Amino acid sequence: MANVAKKVSWSSKDDEARPGEATPLLNGSPTASQPPEVARQFSHTNFFRIERLTTVNLDDDTAQDENPPTCVSKEILHNEKLLSLKYESLDYDNSENQLFMEEERRISKIGFHALEIKRWLVCLFIGIFTGLIACFIDIVVERLADVKYKVIKKNIDKSTEGGGLSISLVLWATMNAGFVMIGSILVAFIEPAATGSGIPQIKCYLNGVKVPHVVRLKTLVVKVFGVIFSVVGGLAVGKEGPMIHSGAVIAAGISQGRSSTLKKDFKIFEYFRRDTEKRDFVSAGAAAGVSAAFGAPVGGVLFSLEEGASFWNQMLTWRIFFASMISTFTLNFVLSIYHNKPGDLSSPGLINFGRFQSEAVQYNWYEIPIFICVGAIGGILGALFNRLNYCLTMFRIRYIHRPCLQVIEAMLVGTVTATVSFIMIYATYAHDCQPIGEDPIKYPLQLFCPDGEYNAMATAFFNTPEKSVRSLFHDSPGSYNPWTLSLFTLSYFLLACWTYGLAVSSGVFIPSLLIGAAWGRLFGIFISTVSTNSTWADPGKYALMGAAAQLGGIVRMTLSLTVIIVEATGNVTYGLPIMLVLMTAKIVGDFFIEGLYDIHIKLQSVPFLGWEPPEKSHALTAREVMSYPVTCFNRLEKVGRIVDILSDISTNHNGFPVVHENLEPDGDNVGRLCGLILRSQLIVLLKHKVFVERANSNLTQRKLQLKDFRDAYPRFPPIQSIHVSQDERDCTMDLTEFMNPTPYSVPEEASLPRAFRLFRTLGLRHLVICDGSNGVIGIITRKDLARYRLHKGQLEELEMAHT
Amino acid sequence: MANVAKKVSWSSKDDEARPGEATPLLNGSPTASQPPEVARQFSHTNFFRIERLTTVNLDDDTAQDENPPTCVSKEILHNEKLLSLKYESLDYDNSENQLFMEEERRISKIGFHALEIKRWLVCLFIGIFTGLIACFIDIVVERLADVKYKVIKKNIDKSTEGGGLSISLVLWATMNAGFVMIGSILVAFIEPAATGSGIPQIKCYLNGVKVPHVVRLKTLVVKVFGVIFSVVGGLAVGKEGPMIHSGAVIAAGISQGRSSTLKKDFKIFEYFRRDTEKRDFVSAGAAAGVSAAFGAPVGGVLFSLEEGASFWNQMLTWRIFFASMISTFTLNFVLSIYHNKPGDLSSPGLINFGRFQSEAVQYNWYEIPIFICVGAIGGILGALFNRLNYCLTMFRIRYIHRPCLQVIEAMLVGTVTATVSFIMIYATYAHDCQPIGEDPIKYPLQLFCPDGEYNAMATAFFNTPEKSVRSLFHDSPGSYNPWTLSLFTLSYFLLACWTYGLAVSSGVFIPSLLIGAAWGRLFGIFISTVSTNSTWADPGKYALMGAAAQLGGIVRMTLSLTVIIVEATGNVTYGLPIMLVLMTAKIVGDFFIEGLYDIHIKLQSVPFLGWEPPEKSHALTAREVMSYPVTCFNRLEKVGRIVDILSDISTNHNGFPVVHENLEPDGDNVGRLCGLILRSQLIVLLKHKVFVERANSNLTQRKLQLKDFRDAYPRFPPIQSIHVSQDERDCTMDLTEFMNPTPYSVPEEASLPRAFRLFRTLGLRHLVICDGSNGVIGIITRKDLARYRLHKGQLEELEMAHT
Repeated sequence: MANVAKKVSWSSKDDEARPGEATPLLNGSPTASQPPEVARQFSHTNFFRIERLTTVNLDDDTAQDENPPTCVSKEILHNEKLLSLKYESLDYDNSENQLFMEEERRISKIGFHALEIKRWLVCLFIGIFTGLIACFIDIVVERLADVKYKVIKKNIDKSTEGGGLSISLVLWATMNAGFVMIGSILVAFIEPAATGSGIPQIKCYLNGVKVPHVVRLKTLVVKVFGVIFSVVGGLAVGKEGPMIHSGAVIAAGISQGRSSTLKKDFKIFEYFRRDTEKRDFVSAGAAAGVSAAFGAPVGGVLFSLEEGASFWNQMLTWRIFFASMISTFTLNFVLSIYHNKPGDLSSPGLINFGRFQSEAVQYNWYEIPIFICVGAIGGILGALFNRLNYCLTMFRIRYIHRPCLQVIEAMLVGTVTATVSFIMIYATYAHDCQPIGEDPIKYPLQLFCPDGEYNAMATAFFNTPEKSVRSLFHDSPGSYNPWTLSLFTLSYFLLACWTYGLAVSSGVFIPSLLIGAAWGRLFGIFISTVSTNSTWADPGKYALMGAAAQLGGIVRMTLSLTVIIVEATGNVTYGLPIMLVLMTAKIVGDFFIEGLYDIHIKLQSVPFLGWEPPEKSHALTAREVMSYPVTCFNRLEKVGRIVDILSDISTNHNGFPVVHENLEPDGDNVGRLCGLILRSQLIVLLKHKVFVERANSNLTQRKLQLKDFRDAYPRFPPIQSIHVSQDERDCTMDLTEFMNPTPYSVPEEASLPRAFRLFRTLGLRHLVICDGSNGVIGIITRKDLARYRLHKGQLEELEMAHT
Repeated sequence: MANVAKKVSWSSKDDEARPGEATPLLNGSPTASQPPEVARQFSHTNFFRIERLTTVNLDDDTAQDENPPTCVSKEILHNEKLLSLKYESLDYDNSENQLFMEEERRISKIGFHALEIKRWLVCLFIGIFTGLIACFIDIVVERLADVKYKVIKKNIDKSTEGGGLSISLVLWATMNAGFVMIGSILVAFIEPAATGSGIPQIKCYLNGVKVPHVVRLKTLVVKVFGVIFSVVGGLAVGKEGPMIHSGAVIAAGISQGRSSTLKKDFKIFEYFRRDTEKRDFVSAGAAAGVSAAFGAPVGGVLFSLEEGASFWNQMLTWRIFFASMISTFTLNFVLSIYHNKPGDLSSPGLINFGRFQSEAVQYNWYEIPIFICVGAIGGILGALFNRLNYCLTMFRIRYIHRPCLQVIEAMLVGTVTATVSFIMIYATYAHDCQPIGEDPIKYPLQLFCPDGEYNAMATAFFNTPEKSVRSLFHDSPGSYNPWTLSLFTLSYFLLACWTYGLAVSSGVFIPSLLIGAAWGRLFGIFISTVSTNSTWADPGKYALMGAAAQLGGIVRMTLSLTVIIVEATGNVTYGLPIMLVLMTAKIVGDFFIEGLYDIHIKLQSVPFLGWEPPEKSHALTAREVMSYPVTCFNRLEKVGRIVDILSDISTNHNGFPVVHENLEPDGDNVGRLCGLILRSQLIVLLKHKVFVERANSNLTQRKLQLKDFRDAYPRFPPIQSIHVSQDERDCTMDLTEFMNPTPYSVPEEASLPRAFRLFRTLGLRHLVICDGSNGVIGIITRKDLARYRLHKGQLEELEMAHT
């Protein structure tokens, strides 16, 4: 087993070696206690079977793990053939217990309207705050970058005349390394959940996986400052991807009306304190983030849709759109004031690709095959990028798992980036000088160029990547020397690939676009050279297509990416070509390797559910995929048994079917399903000591309300923190009022695709499997479904472990 | 009861007075046969309870009703408090019986890929053909309108000099009436399903309701020619709405690889012959239609999403987007060749709103409250429009139900439209003459204007409405006299309101946009008059907002409409204001009356399921809403009993739970659910005489395959056409292999919202209700859920009838 620390995972701070979890790869093969009628047709010789063992001590579920992070390394196999048991599902299915039903019935028509208005209000705030965060990042990055580039430019200008360019290099590299160090320390030591762009994490969250720490305030703060320092540090990263994560955190925070980090409860929006509502708002936040990043409100909606929308509804979509619109409007408005042009709403996103004059760069139908070629190149280069990054990530998982090492690596990358840029600029100084045109470059590096000219390589390197992308799209034909472009593409490709996965907050969108724009422009130059009538072969147009192709080849998003790019260019005309390019890139890329986000999700062993059940899974039935035996409770259950079962860390169940007959654990008698109760509910019940005896003896005791459950959400206390005396252990609890009386169930003969669809579409957490007379014989959770995957035409079953 | 004929309904040709259906409003209150444990807490004193009585002799389900339409009138109560039993559900849930599972297991990896490629291919064809149909409509309308306007213009020009303008009026009115007559005869006599825009019908289809005739080839042909003649006939209609219906029909046709109308089976795409697949393609077709109509591919996707997407997936969305893109590209490409500018892809839709130069008509933040006012006005005017149209429709239902009367009404409207236009033009000739500018009007009517000027009212009236909309958006400030605009708004409002619901193919989008653009421009003129610095108050901008507000106020679409309008203007900048306008229009409008499409859907008594269960429905449980007693079959069932039950027209069930024990109809013993079989499946089984005895006696008999079911889809023969001899009646059928072994079921205690969500999200047709030990005690179909509606803060239950 490889020597891999927990540090590399998205959430590092949970599970300090707890008892019962010493074995990371658990072998819980079925024992004699399984019902005899359950014949397992599927061979399990090579697989480990876990009896629904799950870790409940997740940060978002519990409040006990506020220990500082440590560098303790633990041996865990980390590969993509593994499914982690540490991830819980979100519960999109409301527990329709008596308390809930009573509350719903109590709500008047006006109450419903008030709730609806509150939802809109939350979306308004999500939009505003996401927009403001985007402004903050934009302005701070601009200011800091301005200081940095001015200092370096002054030094270079001085050195060009007086000699000592190596000092300039050292200055540049030191500044980069310094900024990167701050960003990296924040991420590596304070909140590792803020690593990277956060898009894989948000994908998982919207898919229904509870990723620890992902929607915490601390994560947001680290993310925002982290991304500022990594962009200013000159890394090949963008500030756009992290906006999606930021929006999601903002949404989760606002919708709950409180912050656990700040220990502040505003006592508002209490109705929204459950997974169902929270997740809806997180979709809106992610959309608002996309919208602010790219000025693409529709693209934002489609992004949320593409990533999380198995259960969608019209009002929700509309609210998400509203949040997106408000977010781009806020950004636009605040930036217009910042730029002293109040009311000029022309910068709807952190990046916009500038206006393509449709007259000038109209495409012709015979260009469509050429675009498809561009798409194919994008697919291949994207797959190469992903492959390299995959190997790098495996290397990092094995060897660079301590925060200190991670910071050092990040600083190294920052230094190398500066060095490479410098060498590139220096190496091409003699070959590629361009006159300063009407549209002035912000930091024209003259170097050894004649007066009134500047070094063209510097436009690409000595600039924030957003500006470089715009230059590649819009500079007039002939602005770039093909050799300069080739060198730039190659070096930036390698740098970006090295950068993604570093312990810094960073987006991969902009580097991808930049690489693509560079080789796309190169391709355009080539086309215009070989064609006889080259007026149509505008290099800027091909730069755009190349950018789309490269980005599509790396991330493999489809519909939403098309719309995002179309909105960012502000030109609907390019819709079809961009779509074809993205489609080709996806098809070609998928032939070699998966998308970058999916690779990282798999490497985290997240039980991610695809849109459709895997092909060829029709042969499996619910009986074969379910976990069993199931720990059931009776409607009237001894407190002692409940406490014992909850405390049993070897079978850390989160949901328990409630059955009619008394089920002897080893008996043949199978109890008939009459409800489902969650661990979190039981914990609240135990905490409030809702025992039957007590209710009789002490009539003044307050009746438990839904509010008590909401107050505990989402960080329910662990069972260990609840003291139950020996007397109380003999008491009885009546679960009838609190259990969900109508959990979803399917018969044991149901096929895997059928169970999958029900589970995925309704966003379930537990699906009970019943026999012909409604007896509980098994339970299906997310892991049971995510375990099956199509691999080289055959269905394979993943192993499960506590990684 | 009002005197109302079947003619008014979308599908007129079914149910000629069949036995057992003489009573249109059925009183099938529960009898003694109901299970004793089913206590009905909900009072039914005022409601009629139907024991799952449904009409199976629907056209798309049967092949018997090829009788010519008649004018026989039948007394049926037609109002929105009624739920029709004639509509069946589509079945989005695959029957996962043994045949299906075997087939799925047989399909290899390559087979799956081939299927996927076929799906893309079908979408490609959907896009191409939808685009071509749009081109055809556009070109023919342009040609015919050209001829018409030239003839009239010539005559008017002559008459202006020589006198006799009344002759011109007669000529104009006669031409209009003639064109309208042809269009109306097509619709009223040949295929009433082609009435109107078809959007309500497609909404219903995507919602899961099988609307008879709606996706037939004949409907398409009538729709296309109908819309051509009604547009050329000068009615206040657009050709855009019908494109959505056309796209849907094309999709249904292509995906099935055959046409029942043409009696031609191409033997391709046989795998797609089931509701699940067909409906997916129909979504794509509807999206392609929107895309071709408005040049709005993303809007098209969102339209399909908004109307039908409770079960959506990424690949499907992507394919729908592809079909939309291809459709707009095809239209663009063909029209560019037609206009002799091959390769100039600048007309992506049947209508486009022209390019708003964002510099010129940039909006300011302080205009946002003004836009909201515009939205409110749109909401009020839209509600007024809907209210008037509702009264008119009720009037039509009562008195204008014969096709001959319908044709006469349509001709009357055509004549009145011409007369009103003429009078308007004539009345304003002295007041409103405008110089002919650089951008020449196509048919400038000089009338009594000085040379080089034209009558401004004629721009609005003497033109296709699409061109009028563009003029209102883009003509420079001052082109329109406020009085002219007011008069035009008023008259066109009334004309459009009268026109919608006529027996012609017609869209309401363009008239709504035109009305809105007119009063929006008026509003803009007003604003620029009262404001001190009026440079920002561009009337064209307000015309756009007015158009959006009016359309939003009438149809109440939200997200998709915003995107459609943004795409049609080709300017992303207006996103937020358009959204705010549409949102305000919807909120204000909803306060008064529902959207136009919803009104018409309700008047057709369609069991339409909303996105969410009605508020306050938590008090109801599945037990209270289900239908019972349920007719169940045993796994081994006597052929005689099956035939008898299928032939019983008083209980025309479509789905039958299969149970374990023998269920005596009046016994207490409740059979345990073990499957579900559909009427259509039983019919195929009976037709092929799949009897147990036969299988034993005749070993050479071919085993029934899934293909046999697909060949019969979707028009399964009626039970009456199948001859079963007396001997055969004593045979037994084994349903095990053919039934769906794992139908979805919920316990009887489940709340209505819970059952609703499961039903709606998975697109079910039958949801079995079971007791605690899996015994079948009831069944829920679409009507049981659609029956409950929130009305004035209270939950009301609709009556059911065979309307």
